[in-house]
Amino acid sequence: MKFNLSSVLRYRIDEPSTLVLNIQVVNNDHQRICTEQLQLDPEVKFDEYTAPSSLTRYIRIDAPTGKLEVKYEATVELVHFYAEPNTIAEVAIADLPMETLQYLYPSRYCESDRAIGLVQSEFGQLQPGYSKVTAICNWIYNKVTYLSGSTNSQTSAYDTATQRAGVCRDFAHLGITFCRALNIPARFVSAYAYGLNPPDFHACFEAYLGDRWYLFDATRLVPLNSIIRIGTGRDAADVSFGTLFGAVQMEEMKLFVAPVSEAGEMERSDCTGMAIAIS
Amino acid sequence: MKFNLSSVLRYRIDEPSTLVLNIQVVNNDHQRICTEQLQLDPEVKFDEYTAPSSLTRYIRIDAPTGKLEVKYEATVELVHFYAEPNTIAEVAIADLPMETLQYLYPSRYCESDRAIGLVQSEFGQLQPGYSKVTAICNWIYNKVTYLSGSTNSQTSAYDTATQRAGVCRDFAHLGITFCRALNIPARFVSAYAYGLNPPDFHACFEAYLGDRWYLFDATRLVPLNSIIRIGTGRDAADVSFGTLFGAVQMEEMKLFVAPVSEAGEMERSDCTGMAIAIS
Amino acid sequence: MKFNLSSVLRYRIDEPSTLVLNIQVVNNDHQRICTEQLQLDPEVKFDEYTAPSSLTRYIRIDAPTGKLEVKYEATVELVHFYAEPNTIAEVAIADLPMETLQYLYPSRYCESDRAIGLVQSEFGQLQPGYSKVTAICNWIYNKVTYLSGSTNSQTSAYDTATQRAGVCRDFAHLGITFCRALNIPARFVSAYAYGLNPPDFHACFEAYLGDRWYLFDATRLVPLNSIIRIGTGRDAADVSFGTLFGAVQMEEMKLFVAPVSEAGEMERSDCTGMAIAIS
Amino acid sequence: MKFNLSSVLRYRIDEPSTLVLNIQVVNNDHQRICTEQLQLDPEVKFDEYTAPSSLTRYIRIDAPTGKLEVKYEATVELVHFYAEPNTIAEVAIADLPMETLQYLYPSRYCESDRAIGLVQSEFGQLQPGYSKVTAICNWIYNKVTYLSGSTNSQTSAYDTATQRAGVCRDFAHLGITFCRALNIPARFVSAYAYGLNPPDFHACFEAYLGDRWYLFDATRLVPLNSIIRIGTGRDAADVSFGTLFGAVQMEEMKLFVAPVSEAGEMERSDCTGMAIAIS
Repeated sequence: MKFNLSSVLRYRIDEPSTLVLNIQVVNNDHQRICTEQLQLDPEVKFDEYTAPSSLTRYIRIDAPTGKLEVKYEATVELVHFYAEPNTIAEVAIADLPMETLQYLYPSRYCESDRAIGLVQSEFGQLQPGYSKVTAICNWIYNKVTYLSGSTNSQTSAYDTATQRAGVCRDFAHLGITFCRALNIPARFVSAYAYGLNPPDFHACFEAYLGDRWYLFDATRLVPLNSIIRIGTGRDAADVSFGTLFGAVQMEEMKLFVAPVSEAGEMERSDCTGMAIAIS
Repeated sequence: MKFNLSSVLRYRIDEPSTLVLNIQVVNNDHQRICTEQLQLDPEVKFDEYTAPSSLTRYIRIDAPTGKLEVKYEATVELVHFYAEPNTIAEVAIADLPMETLQYLYPSRYCESDRAIGLVQSEFGQLQPGYSKVTAICNWIYNKVTYLSGSTNSQTSAYDTATQRAGVCRDFAHLGITFCRALNIPARFVSAYAYGLNPPDFHACFEAYLGDRWYLFDATRLVPLNSIIRIGTGRDAADVSFGTLFGAVQMEEMKLFVAPVSEAGEMERSDCTGMAIAIS
Repeated sequence: MKFNLSSVLRYRIDEPSTLVLNIQVVNNDHQRICTEQLQLDPEVKFDEYTAPSSLTRYIRIDAPTGKLEVKYEATVELVHFYAEPNTIAEVAIADLPMETLQYLYPSRYCESDRAIGLVQSEFGQLQPGYSKVTAICNWIYNKVTYLSGSTNSQTSAYDTATQRAGVCRDFAHLGITFCRALNIPARFVSAYAYGLNPPDFHACFEAYLGDRWYLFDATRLVPLNSIIRIGTGRDAADVSFGTLFGAVQMEEMKLFVAPVSEAGEMERSDCTGMAIAIS
Repeated sequence: MKFNLSSVLRYRIDEPSTLVLNIQVVNNDHQRICTEQLQLDPEVKFDEYTAPSSLTRYIRIDAPTGKLEVKYEATVELVHFYAEPNTIAEVAIADLPMETLQYLYPSRYCESDRAIGLVQSEFGQLQPGYSKVTAICNWIYNKVTYLSGSTNSQTSAYDTATQRAGVCRDFAHLGITFCRALNIPARFVSAYAYGLNPPDFHACFEAYLGDRWYLFDATRLVPLNSIIRIGTGRDAADVSFGTLFGAVQMEEMKLFVAPVSEAGEMERSDCTGMAIAIS
């Protein structure tokens, strides 16, 4: 499946400031960048950095006072791995790849150490495996209201567990938290996604099951195979699409995502009920 | 029903200190004190105070360095009000007695303002009335583990909602919080209770339904009609059995509660499934 | 000193709702209501309640769908008690009036039990007395930024201690919290105040020192003797000027406060540096 | 400077369990392992993992029921970088190495996003540079009490900022939090340290200043140049010395650290007042 995507971010810079943006998509075996273009107006200098293990890409812009427009366009081909959910087992701690262990530990927005009681009560009796993470997503979908503006950048899963409202990032944090509290490695995925209305950056999560990271999205806002990865991290603190240092205001954000052909659409409808991985 | 009860509290005072104790039972129409005795050893002076509306009784002891033993004994007759649960309606805010409104507001350990999402998700679809508070108690009983030592004096209902472990005071705080978040006035009751093993001070809660305050106890540790009220308050902050100012250590606490006669025992077994009020 | 004051609150009621308002001033020996008028448009029925010990007045309005305007006007004479700050001592727990003890305990927005470390570190070495509470107010004034919109109805003193921004209610909560953590009874005062720009409901606090409740206001926004008491409570949870149950939106709020004569102005300027009580 | 060090950890395993230990020291240019030995009794299998960027080393042990003793011994040579504190400047965000940016973001125990108000109030007026981080350490040393048992594995810097008590890990978390809130990258260091009484694992932190990571220790418990690095992470969640999955109890822990010769002792006394780096 191929997608065209673009984002345009417009900032007002009131004094020289620094912006760290994480808006370029990841380039790996499951997600190949066919074409890509990044334009800044004015053409100020910027640094690029690709995190070694996650391949998440950051740019740092040294912006002068005035307006700044950042425009990113890409065509990306996704190579999904599909599996039957009921064939995917949970992995014992002793058998997990060592590099996944870090995703068992609590993070800023995913205080899994404080949610052990909740997960034991709500999910402790369930069969282990992919279906347990599906049950977590169902719980979140059924019990948490998707409500724009209901949370802010300080809201963590510990809050959402009781306040029961949030946006995609909060849904992802809650899913990650519950997985970790059940000893299932889980991590945050920031993404472009086809089908969001209005278009916006999206967030979902991955849980390590079987022999790979499977995608989950408790919001049910888009099909799993229309998610194009930007960043991978412990939680949103790692992969904020924009971290602003200085007197900077975002004035406008426009996103666009579309499948390249009708064929893509058809493929999507064929995979209902399948587990999907892009790692 | 009549109960004999006693408590013996032994303190070690390392320098002159002040103790505020709330261990004497309330005397009102539903709970008549037949006999009562309070002894301090040594016989230091103390002040007495009965809170005007709740009739909760406090003593303040100015204790010199050394040992202090406080011994309280009482015989109390309870006059329960019994009702069929399914006849007890919820009361519209507009019809509540004005003096009950304060029990709708959040307090230190019952942050009901932060639990509105949870209660709407978990209890929002239920029929109003006594049965809704019963559903709250069942939720707590089923989802929270009674575990001595799992919480401390800073633990609030917001914590317990996710940590899912606590003692009687935490169970009461959670019940109160959920009721208030559903616009049902609720308040904390500290008590002696017959049947606790080991004997200890107990805590439960009251919700205002129909035309009075009904007792609820999500711990299911004792029958509702074996609860003898000590204090009534917003939450445990109001009616701690002992608040210690200075270098004071409690070294021992012994409680005893027993029905006066077999008749009391029989009466208890007759009231299973009834709603009970002692206010 | 005499003040004329008024408040006009306009609500939009989308379906029949209940409002609990706490906008009428207290009538007691230190604050005498000369004239007073409360008008509702439309003239819907309402209940009145005066809390027994604090004399705080609440009205409960059963409002039909449509517009509701509540207009309150009063002329009030304040009879201040003035004292030299350096003559006002702290009171040992053992000597406090028993009814003040409740104001030592933590409440929803004043988690004094969690601030004991902070107050010992910041204020533990100070001389006891009125000046210690002044030091608390100076600390708050110097370290917390007054910033409209920086907090919400869930913000507590535990947050403000670190976030260091808030409005009058947050300043009061922090002062109360620090006092209680130092074993000084403290309580919340909601008020009309002369001199606020723009006019708004105000909040400050009282600490029990010497033989009475002295007023403190860490915001320094108005002179202490231009504060006209509406409510007294543990914290803002007790004396919110408006608690809305149902589909109610406040659309407009207009307040007016002015001294009746120039004489009042002069009296105010004479009392700089004095401790002031209106309880 | 050379140090001999050892740790012996004894566990009781009640059913087959998995342990992840982070007790081996890092081997890099500033800290060379001369000799090293790890022994398990019984000799169960274990996996080893060295995190790619930090070189932190983890072992994962699949332990059968029974006793488990883990014994680690090493001789390590530290190659310190010393600098005059007043020559070390703060680095603008625009000039930081890109890989240090991640240490600006909040983490589980270091909610720097919630401490911006506090740091602006307490440190906002200070000159930028090494001395600002020294001021942070002094603040922590002066205002937070080092008290064993005062905190637990859920305590975060947000708590410690108000509760003002903790152990080395809490002191480090607070220092990290304050640095990040001031836009100075900061990270957690777990360590062996010479001079702790009783011997224990230690924690301190590094801040990125000038062109490298400088060590800081707000506890003042040991000289900076007697710290031997075990792990480097966002906070304690990354580098817990032992993470236990299953029915495991640590029964005993014995640590030993000593300089290899007197010469080391002398060198230490020569560097008072110097900034020290081992990264």
